[in-house]
Amino acid sequence: MKLVPLGDRVVLKQCEAEETTKSGIILAGSAQEKPQEAKVVAVGPGGMVDGKEVTMQVKEGDKVIYSKYAGNEVKVDGEEYIIVKQNDILAIVENESN
Amino acid sequence: MKLVPLGDRVVLKQCEAEETTKSGIILAGSAQEKPQEAKVVAVGPGGMVDGKEVTMQVKEGDKVIYSKYAGNEVKVDGEEYIIVKQNDILAIVENESN
Amino acid sequence: MKLVPLGDRVVLKQCEAEETTKSGIILAGSAQEKPQEAKVVAVGPGGMVDGKEVTMQVKEGDKVIYSKYAGNEVKVDGEEYIIVKQNDILAIVENESN
Amino acid sequence: MKLVPLGDRVVLKQCEAEETTKSGIILAGSAQEKPQEAKVVAVGPGGMVDGKEVTMQVKEGDKVIYSKYAGNEVKVDGEEYIIVKQNDILAIVENESN
Amino acid sequence: MKLVPLGDRVVLKQCEAEETTKSGIILAGSAQEKPQEAKVVAVGPGGMVDGKEVTMQVKEGDKVIYSKYAGNEVKVDGEEYIIVKQNDILAIVENESN
Amino acid sequence: MKLVPLGDRVVLKQCEAEETTKSGIILAGSAQEKPQEAKVVAVGPGGMVDGKEVTMQVKEGDKVIYSKYAGNEVKVDGEEYIIVKQNDILAIVENESN
Amino acid sequence: MKLVPLGDRVVLKQCEAEETTKSGIILAGSAQEKPQEAKVVAVGPGGMVDGKEVTMQVKEGDKVIYSKYAGNEVKVDGEEYIIVKQNDILAIVENESN
Repeated sequence: MKLVPLGDRVVLKQCEAEETTKSGIILAGSAQEKPQEAKVVAVGPGGMVDGKEVTMQVKEGDKVIYSKYAGNEVKVDGEEYIIVKQNDILAIVENESN
Repeated sequence: MKLVPLGDRVVLKQCEAEETTKSGIILAGSAQEKPQEAKVVAVGPGGMVDGKEVTMQVKEGDKVIYSKYAGNEVKVDGEEYIIVKQNDILAIVENESN
Repeated sequence: MKLVPLGDRVVLKQCEAEETTKSGIILAGSAQEKPQEAKVVAVGPGGMVDGKEVTMQVKEGDKVIYSKYAGNEVKVDGEEYIIVKQNDILAIVENESN
Repeated sequence: MKLVPLGDRVVLKQCEAEETTKSGIILAGSAQEKPQEAKVVAVGPGGMVDGKEVTMQVKEGDKVIYSKYAGNEVKVDGEEYIIVKQNDILAIVENESN
Repeated sequence: MKLVPLGDRVVLKQCEAEETTKSGIILAGSAQEKPQEAKVVAVGPGGMVDGKEVTMQVKEGDKVIYSKYAGNEVKVDGEEYIIVKQNDILAIVENESN
Repeated sequence: MKLVPLGDRVVLKQCEAEETTKSGIILAGSAQEKPQEAKVVAVGPGGMVDGKEVTMQVKEGDKVIYSKYAGNEVKVDGEEYIIVKQNDILAIVENESN
Repeated sequence: MKLVPLGDRVVLKQCEAEETTKSGIILAGSAQEKPQEAKVVAVGPGGMVDGKEVTMQVKEGDKVIYSKYAGNEVKVDGEEYIIVKQNDILAIVENESN
């Protein structure tokens, strides 16, 4: 099954917690805080939402940081997703070419 | 009797909890959480709602995910329905052709 | 005496709890929950209400479902009424010709 | 002294509790609930109020029903009045010619 | 020193509690409730306030009734004043010529 | 260092509590309430703030009264300042020529 | 990795607490309050945000004071950042040439 978000909603899939420390060592696992990073899975069409014109600024595949207290957790086909309004996405995380 | 929703309201009928796990096994029953999936039964006309122009984006028969804390539960002819504002519908669930 | 509602207010008279079960048996009485069904008794003129243009969509005689926590209960000539804003009416209940 | 309300304010004088039962008997007195009926004593000019154009729809002498939790009680020359915004007036009570 | 209020603010000086009863006897003193009457001491220029055009409708010297829970108490040169927004002034109290 | 406020913010420096009583005696010190008087240290540019056009009405050097519960206290170079929105400034205090 | 803020968001990096007292002595360390000063690391594009046109007024490298209770703390590559809306930035801190 596929989730098709309405309006300015965005479907996110939380990233698994493989956090790279500054010196390059990868921590996989449990003793870390749950990161607020997620991958964009589906993006609503935007347009008039609650009387305001919204242009979508994220796209499928983007890695984003979202607001800790935002969003609805849903479970489809055994997979967990978070559905947020685009306004609850704080920033896109881009990889720098080193 | 038939419910004819006003404005941007949508009448939903909660889906029965037949959840398919990823590997295809169907779980029917009780030990699961109540899903937030519902089928659209009737759709209001939209138009000017609370001073804002609303276009309806769901239609009768759509399977949708709605916000956990939204909606009014009503009982008509012994059947339970949920009446939500379209804004409380997060996403349409589409079947993928595998 | 007659109640003439202002703006987008609607005067409702709660329906007596004669609920028909699916199989056609009528339950009259006490052990049931109070239904949120009501009959429209009088309808305000609509127009500019709180800076927003409101068109009235219900009419005298309509049977409606209204939001559980809405409305002001008033008593006129010993009869109880509920005065709601049209926005608190969720749906019109229509009889289907079977 | 005379109260001249500003904007969309309306000065009300609560009706004395002479409630006529359906069969025509007048109850005068104490064992009744305080009615929310009041007589309009003075009406503000309306116009731009809080950035919204308001047209006054009640006039001096109207008998009205107002919202239970609204209004400011004031005492002028030993008389008690209630000052409400017009928006807190639910309906005008009209006498029917029987 | 002089207070020059900004925007739609009004500086009030609470009236001393010389309340005249209906029969004309003046009560001066302590056993009474504190009246919400005040005299207008200074009036802001109005204009665009919080994105809304406000026209001032009270003037210096007016005796007004203001909302019980509104306003900021300030002390200038040992004198106490209340600064309210015009919207918190309910009515102007005018003397009737008897 | 210098604070350059954004939008409709105003940087204030609280006045020291040298309050002159009506008869001209200066009270310096501790047994008094903290006054809400402050001197304007820097003024934001105004303009579009939160979707509303704001014109700044105070200027550097003005002595003002501000709302008790408003503002952010900040410390720069060991000096304490209060940053408020212009809307939280109630009045300008002007010296009268006696 | 690089944070690219959306809309009117600004990515801040909290300044280390090297506070210079008025007489020029530098306090480095622990017994001080955490300052609300931060350096701007990245600035969103502004534009239509929540139905309002926002022009960004801070730029990368600015030293700013932000509102104590605002913002989301995020951790990227082991570094902590604060993401605020521009509206939560109170003032830019400029160095004076002495």
